[in-house]
Amino acid sequence: MPAATAPFEAPGSRAETEEGEAFTPRFDANGLIACIAVDAGDGRVLMLAHMNAQALARTLETGEAWYWSRSRGELWHKGATSGQIQRIVEIRADCDQDALLLRVRVGGDGGCCHTGRRDCFYRVVAFEPASGRARLRHAAS
Amino acid sequence: MPAATAPFEAPGSRAETEEGEAFTPRFDANGLIACIAVDAGDGRVLMLAHMNAQALARTLETGEAWYWSRSRGELWHKGATSGQIQRIVEIRADCDQDALLLRVRVGGDGGCCHTGRRDCFYRVVAFEPASGRARLRHAAS
Repeated sequence: MPAATAPFEAPGSRAETEEGEAFTPRFDANGLIACIAVDAGDGRVLMLAHMNAQALARTLETGEAWYWSRSRGELWHKGATSGQIQRIVEIRADCDQDALLLRVRVGGDGGCCHTGRRDCFYRVVAFEPASGRARLRHAAS
Repeated sequence: MPAATAPFEAPGSRAETEEGEAFTPRFDANGLIACIAVDAGDGRVLMLAHMNAQALARTLETGEAWYWSRSRGELWHKGATSGQIQRIVEIRADCDQDALLLRVRVGGDGGCCHTGRRDCFYRVVAFEPASGRARLRHAAS
């Protein structure tokens, strides 16, 4: 049985994890769980980030998204400096509880990405069969 | 500079990674990149999974989603047994190229989750402030 990461209980059986009502998030070897943030208004996927147990607990307690910044190695209250606070409308867990889906309302200017864009997925992967190579092109929207 | 994972080039500078047109996916220490699959029709988030470089290359070449199954430790052609093939409509990379967003059309019965449901996010995290504990409840939709 995987170890618990306080304050969350350790995962139970596969059946319990997949069909039960116990919230037993499965953090990875680095103590992180992947989180997809989508705009609660139109469902647009805004970003992918990670939480550790502390960030998840704080998110639940405050109703605002807290993440773990892997690049900075610190707890990250999203929007604390930019104003782009993500107020939690709903959090869902996936079947094996190793991913979370956050429906959020974004504060400030409504943006999300640190590049200034509304979301982080602003480039399309264009694959060229002839060369077998892929390039990126900036998306129109 | 992070090592390249063949057949993809290694990431360049931060500016190149964030604003450039070179596709330089950043695989993690386990050689994986997180992938969000959404239904190309209505934008619903279906699942979160991972690809290694081989799975990503095969996805680009075939136009169908291939993942790396962390639980089974093997390449995973999504839908090969269930019929729930994910045909790629579009792939996007995020700002720092460590996450992918796949817009897919799902074959077979249109489902995605191995539990038989359309998507993997069928339970809502319900936080109880009084006890400080969270439970799951099955979502209506």
